[in-house]
Amino acid sequence: MPQSLARRMDGLHSSAIRDLLTLTARPDVVSLAGGLPDPEFIPRERIRKEAELALTDPASVQYGETTGLRRLRDVLAAREGAKIGRPLGAADVVVTHGSQQALSLLAQVLLDPGDVVIVEEPAYTGALQVFRAAEADVRSVALDADGMDTAALQGMLEDGLRPAVVHTVSNFHNPRGVVLTPGRREHLAALADRYGFWVIEDDPYGELFFDGPPPAPVAALSDRVIRLSSASKILAPALRVGWLHGDRRVCEAVELLKQGADLCGSSLTHQIAAGLLSDEPWLDLHLETLRARYGSRARALADGVTSTFGDRVRVSSAAGGMFCWTEFTDADLDTAALLQTAVDHGVAFVPGAAFGVAAEHRGAVRLCFATCSEDVLAGAVARLGDAYTAHAQS
Amino acid sequence: MPQSLARRMDGLHSSAIRDLLTLTARPDVVSLAGGLPDPEFIPRERIRKEAELALTDPASVQYGETTGLRRLRDVLAAREGAKIGRPLGAADVVVTHGSQQALSLLAQVLLDPGDVVIVEEPAYTGALQVFRAAEADVRSVALDADGMDTAALQGMLEDGLRPAVVHTVSNFHNPRGVVLTPGRREHLAALADRYGFWVIEDDPYGELFFDGPPPAPVAALSDRVIRLSSASKILAPALRVGWLHGDRRVCEAVELLKQGADLCGSSLTHQIAAGLLSDEPWLDLHLETLRARYGSRARALADGVTSTFGDRVRVSSAAGGMFCWTEFTDADLDTAALLQTAVDHGVAFVPGAAFGVAAEHRGAVRLCFATCSEDVLAGAVARLGDAYTAHAQS
Repeated sequence: MPQSLARRMDGLHSSAIRDLLTLTARPDVVSLAGGLPDPEFIPRERIRKEAELALTDPASVQYGETTGLRRLRDVLAAREGAKIGRPLGAADVVVTHGSQQALSLLAQVLLDPGDVVIVEEPAYTGALQVFRAAEADVRSVALDADGMDTAALQGMLEDGLRPAVVHTVSNFHNPRGVVLTPGRREHLAALADRYGFWVIEDDPYGELFFDGPPPAPVAALSDRVIRLSSASKILAPALRVGWLHGDRRVCEAVELLKQGADLCGSSLTHQIAAGLLSDEPWLDLHLETLRARYGSRARALADGVTSTFGDRVRVSSAAGGMFCWTEFTDADLDTAALLQTAVDHGVAFVPGAAFGVAAEHRGAVRLCFATCSEDVLAGAVARLGDAYTAHAQS
Repeated sequence: MPQSLARRMDGLHSSAIRDLLTLTARPDVVSLAGGLPDPEFIPRERIRKEAELALTDPASVQYGETTGLRRLRDVLAAREGAKIGRPLGAADVVVTHGSQQALSLLAQVLLDPGDVVIVEEPAYTGALQVFRAAEADVRSVALDADGMDTAALQGMLEDGLRPAVVHTVSNFHNPRGVVLTPGRREHLAALADRYGFWVIEDDPYGELFFDGPPPAPVAALSDRVIRLSSASKILAPALRVGWLHGDRRVCEAVELLKQGADLCGSSLTHQIAAGLLSDEPWLDLHLETLRARYGSRARALADGVTSTFGDRVRVSSAAGGMFCWTEFTDADLDTAALLQTAVDHGVAFVPGAAFGVAAEHRGAVRLCFATCSEDVLAGAVARLGDAYTAHAQS
């Protein structure tokens, strides 16, 4: 095997989360580790109808355009244009095989080995994997309750750091749960314009708000932003429909790379997605239902953790998305070590260390509230409490 | 944009074939340029039933394993194991997003920039695109009526060339139509073992034989072979189901890269493909019908070309696959120039130059017989004859 493979394999650990998912697939373990939507909330019956309708058209089984089905790009352009407050056309949108493919192709388009990429601390592991595979010099900037600390970012830039890319999960951060404030969005956009880096605004969770919609995207504020989103969390992961929009040259380069990467997406799942996304009355109702259901679970989990652990934890506000970031205040606790005890007690989570770049997050855990019902979440928190007690006594 | 992008964009022309497809999408032009199955031969009704059945299972809309749905890998392992004459298990197979993704991930796994890759002359353009994007040093070895000229390959190796990868479309070559003979398969496998290069055996067309099945795969003869195939040509492109099997370390590296590239495939289309591929009585009948129908078209096209052009052409035997490689004997003819006249006459093809590496193939064209009926093919050949005459007089 070539040197590059050995080198890449070093940096490219199998995603810790995915390995954990394998580990915790035991039926007696309640896993709060994944980032999976509840299959019961996925509109399977509606997908079946759209599939049936799509399959009356021979084009639904044929090869499609590399940038994605025109009808799907039209509806995505309309929706995204409304979010950023300026009109977009089908040519401005590239449909990708999930937004993970958008990240991966963007890394190939925007990065040379050794280029600096700034991610949030803690960071989305799928982004870390992509940037490390691209042999980027991955740095991190602190994240607090208001999202990325853009003042800290400005300091890094003033100290001479010249990133090619800054990656942000602007809405309901994975794993941290927070939303970037409007002021910081403006600050980030201004820094991008001033220093000439690209912002990848990675937004798979923006539609899953429980209290109110998030602020306008960073992409509304600068042309240096490539915005990513996905149908996986609001419709179905199995559609494998993600998308990106932004600078036209970048989109064209992504299209060229996608030709070589996989030629095109599935005309069938693109038609299904287009059908669902263009039925606005249905979609609005579906999203409202989804927000209410996931919101209820988020509150159940956060309340359960707070009542079980009291002042031994700090729990992130559960205002949207899928995750509740919980920091134990016990300075000695290593949640990676706690995990084994937790699995023995029938509950799993992702230790904070999985998301660390420069920091360790030894005392933190990411808990997913999306996959299980309120009752199951309550039981899982009780098990976590028992595991914590047992671990402290061991 | 980074230097790498500019460099890659130079080598990474948009696929000539795909650009042509756009150019020739005019309704008055019969396109023999694409490599598209006839949508009428795609079992849409059966796909609809499998989709309906799949969607009774919540797992059909959820994220799936990176290597592909277990049930799909099981049936692929059984089928591929039977072809290569030794048992394979699900862990030996990685399902990819079409076999193009398999090629792309393999290039990332097996190649460093500057590594030598040997392709066939003429070559599959999708492979050229991938290897050029990987910044490989792409060389070519001649192809004749018996497939890759392995004696010429041996000469290149004896002269000191040390390829990392040799790529072959062993069955019903795209664009050349030929099949690698059993003796040359053994020779290629022996050279791989002796010189330690990897063979990528790219076989999307092997099931589409019109006279009899092709010889046992090169993968039956050496452990240095990674074998690729696809459901696109026998079931439906829109399933986006390709696969690879071979060396376990290479498969594991492909899996790791696929995590970063797109996390996983579509559980829905994987279930559909598994349903179709595991229903052997149905599949056998479907494949027999497909072979008869495409075989009839292949003969219609080849006979039409021969009767129209006589000894002004050499037509490849149409024993399988989708393509008829036609070489004009007129030494002055440039088929790239002929194309414009042909489009004006309402017919399109891919000029040989699109497949050239070291040679130009100026006198050759690739004609696809799969997409159009025998009648339409006859009309297209008549138009091509008129275009040829007009071009000669211009």
